[in-house]
Amino acid sequence: MSKDIVKPSILPGFMELTPTDQILFNKMLDTIRQNYEKFGFLPIDTPVIEKTEVLLAKGGGETEKQIYRFEKGSTDMSLRFDLTVPLARYVAQHYSELSFPFRRYHIGKVYRGERNQKGRFREFYQCDIDIVGNGILDIINDAEIPSLIYSTFRDLGFDSFTIKINNRKMLKGFFNSLDIEDSTFVLRAIDKLDKIGMAEVEKELESLGIANHNIRRTKEFLNIKGSNNDIIGNLEALKIDDETFKEGLEELSTVIKYIDLFGVPEKNYRIDLTMVRGLDYYTGTVYETILDDYPSLGSICGGGRYENLAEYYTKQKLPGVGMSIGLTRLFYQLREAKIIEATEKSLTKALIIPMDSFVEKGVETVNELRGEGIYAQIYLESGKIGKIFNYADKLNIPYVIVIGQEEAENNTYSLRDMKTGEQKNISLEEVIKCLK
Amino acid sequence: MSKDIVKPSILPGFMELTPTDQILFNKMLDTIRQNYEKFGFLPIDTPVIEKTEVLLAKGGGETEKQIYRFEKGSTDMSLRFDLTVPLARYVAQHYSELSFPFRRYHIGKVYRGERNQKGRFREFYQCDIDIVGNGILDIINDAEIPSLIYSTFRDLGFDSFTIKINNRKMLKGFFNSLDIEDSTFVLRAIDKLDKIGMAEVEKELESLGIANHNIRRTKEFLNIKGSNNDIIGNLEALKIDDETFKEGLEELSTVIKYIDLFGVPEKNYRIDLTMVRGLDYYTGTVYETILDDYPSLGSICGGGRYENLAEYYTKQKLPGVGMSIGLTRLFYQLREAKIIEATEKSLTKALIIPMDSFVEKGVETVNELRGEGIYAQIYLESGKIGKIFNYADKLNIPYVIVIGQEEAENNTYSLRDMKTGEQKNISLEEVIKCLK
Repeated sequence: MSKDIVKPSILPGFMELTPTDQILFNKMLDTIRQNYEKFGFLPIDTPVIEKTEVLLAKGGGETEKQIYRFEKGSTDMSLRFDLTVPLARYVAQHYSELSFPFRRYHIGKVYRGERNQKGRFREFYQCDIDIVGNGILDIINDAEIPSLIYSTFRDLGFDSFTIKINNRKMLKGFFNSLDIEDSTFVLRAIDKLDKIGMAEVEKELESLGIANHNIRRTKEFLNIKGSNNDIIGNLEALKIDDETFKEGLEELSTVIKYIDLFGVPEKNYRIDLTMVRGLDYYTGTVYETILDDYPSLGSICGGGRYENLAEYYTKQKLPGVGMSIGLTRLFYQLREAKIIEATEKSLTKALIIPMDSFVEKGVETVNELRGEGIYAQIYLESGKIGKIFNYADKLNIPYVIVIGQEEAENNTYSLRDMKTGEQKNISLEEVIKCLK
Repeated sequence: MSKDIVKPSILPGFMELTPTDQILFNKMLDTIRQNYEKFGFLPIDTPVIEKTEVLLAKGGGETEKQIYRFEKGSTDMSLRFDLTVPLARYVAQHYSELSFPFRRYHIGKVYRGERNQKGRFREFYQCDIDIVGNGILDIINDAEIPSLIYSTFRDLGFDSFTIKINNRKMLKGFFNSLDIEDSTFVLRAIDKLDKIGMAEVEKELESLGIANHNIRRTKEFLNIKGSNNDIIGNLEALKIDDETFKEGLEELSTVIKYIDLFGVPEKNYRIDLTMVRGLDYYTGTVYETILDDYPSLGSICGGGRYENLAEYYTKQKLPGVGMSIGLTRLFYQLREAKIIEATEKSLTKALIIPMDSFVEKGVETVNELRGEGIYAQIYLESGKIGKIFNYADKLNIPYVIVIGQEEAENNTYSLRDMKTGEQKNISLEEVIKCLK
């Protein structure tokens, strides 16, 4: 019976890793999760498929074009495109069962049918945390998020990274003071500064009808640089008489003060007045994080404060602050830039190789090692010893234990360190001691 | 600006847990993963969305009706409905990069648009392991899988469970010896024995045209009971002269012998000749696992040996053996039957409550505790102390640390054990010692 062979392949825009890369990816996920839990965040998991009317309650825009949407029976459903909308739905739906401030983390896959391009994925892991208040949420929470960002990236092995901080309320107030009432488009223009440069941003502001003297003042404002305290001082010195500006600046000073108390080293955070984040969703503090030595990777983690998480699902006012790491893209970028490299090819500490008639002893041995919590496996196929050593080598298994005639007679184990080539004939107790 | 409120809800047939249940669910997932890794299995992760032609290469049947299938642009895509088809595709696609025997585990969500009924889910976690050989795979591998099942369920907190073992090759040989050449339908009838009873199975065998004396012999065969060794002895005593039967029986004896060597206690496994598993896919050893005190839950973990994993994607012959735990359904059943109960409402060990003007000291303290690896959080909202204690109570946080005037002056911390109500005024070092 001959079968038709279908070429095994996956869809473009989806990441699939070798086990070696997967081990590293999972370690990074574990590190992130452990940090989220250490900071007192609770896990949730929501369905990947939701009702389209729920996911798109906010409606339209770019999102709607990218969404994977389909019908099954008469039900219109879609795959989630982020973890924020599901959080909003979750909090509104389970409101009475939750304790506020509700601190939740969520690590899961989300889906966007984006145009296919290098480093962009249609399925990717988001690792989100949010602190959601019931009606109100203290501003100091905004200082705890950078502390978690710092702790997480430090544990991921990074040292030179900067958490950039700004406050959209302050920006809004600043533009209010220039009589620019709807600052949305102005902020969008400034958001492109990194990519297109000041000259182009200026042109865009002109085309938005911003008067020349206001463009000049905007440039001066965006040029405020220095230490965090210098910047705060300079902003205060502007003496801008706008309530929103004052509130935003007050928030920013508080956040900067408490970030320090939360233990983030000064070199790892700084105010960046040009960083506004694209999403209109944010209403106060905003964050982005860059790797100092690889600024071209862009932001590796972003977030901020929002006024009302779930306005499309409930009348409860639920302000919050949070951040997200897009691990799939980050992993891809770090690997491409050779900043990370997967070296562990297996999780196994020892491979047991029983010679022909000593399989039974081999099985007992692997069982004993596992009982001691040692990650171990046994090679059960027939084959030349060279081929089996090759298997251990290819999987980078650090130790091999050979059990043959001699070992069986003396009740010993031949333990070989695959890196040094050193070989010892020792008792099981000694093997266990050595592997632990 | 008033907004339209969309009722927050999820689709029927999807499981969504409270954080308390999620903590327990995640612990179970972690336990499973840890066991899989301890036994030397490598992690993989595949896209949830795949090309329909790839997922349905085997074609049709019940699966096709249940699949979530849709088009995006001109691409026909579907959500995976198990982790076995993606494994087959993965091994065929990455064949040259893998070391065989390829031991992989995969924990992820799969999707089936099944008829909506209690305890059935349209999105559920599968936790799979498989050992895939290149051309050949030793039968002793079939004895390692029960050892992993045993270790996993023991670590999940179970004691009274039985891994039922059978061999489809032996069954096939048995029916061959009765001149029943295509045993597929006979096996399907026997598969229903648990549900419909022997009388009904007999009727079904009759309607399949099986002769009366053969039905009698089938009944006698299925009635063979006793210790594992008794059953093996009785099967040998049948002296059935069929090569397939002999091969299957030989395999079964080997598996039974090595399960013991792999350390599975005798009470936790037994040969069950009536257990055939529905899937035609299996060609040798088959497993199911039941909780002795809750047989009505059915099989909580199943698997077996197959001859050729990836015949639809490659000409390489890839035999394998594996098993799967459907955790979403299992969790639901265990919870409904009150076999498990979620009690941990938070992962936080200590909640820091700073009085009015001692927030700074509180922030420094939470930072110190986290630095020591202690899961801690700080309460930053204003509110009466009673309300804050209530928050700690509702989240079952075991310790509360109050920092007020007195504590600040003496540089001490008021540590309260929320269970006993005991309160101590101690130094930070003592707090850390106590919480570690």
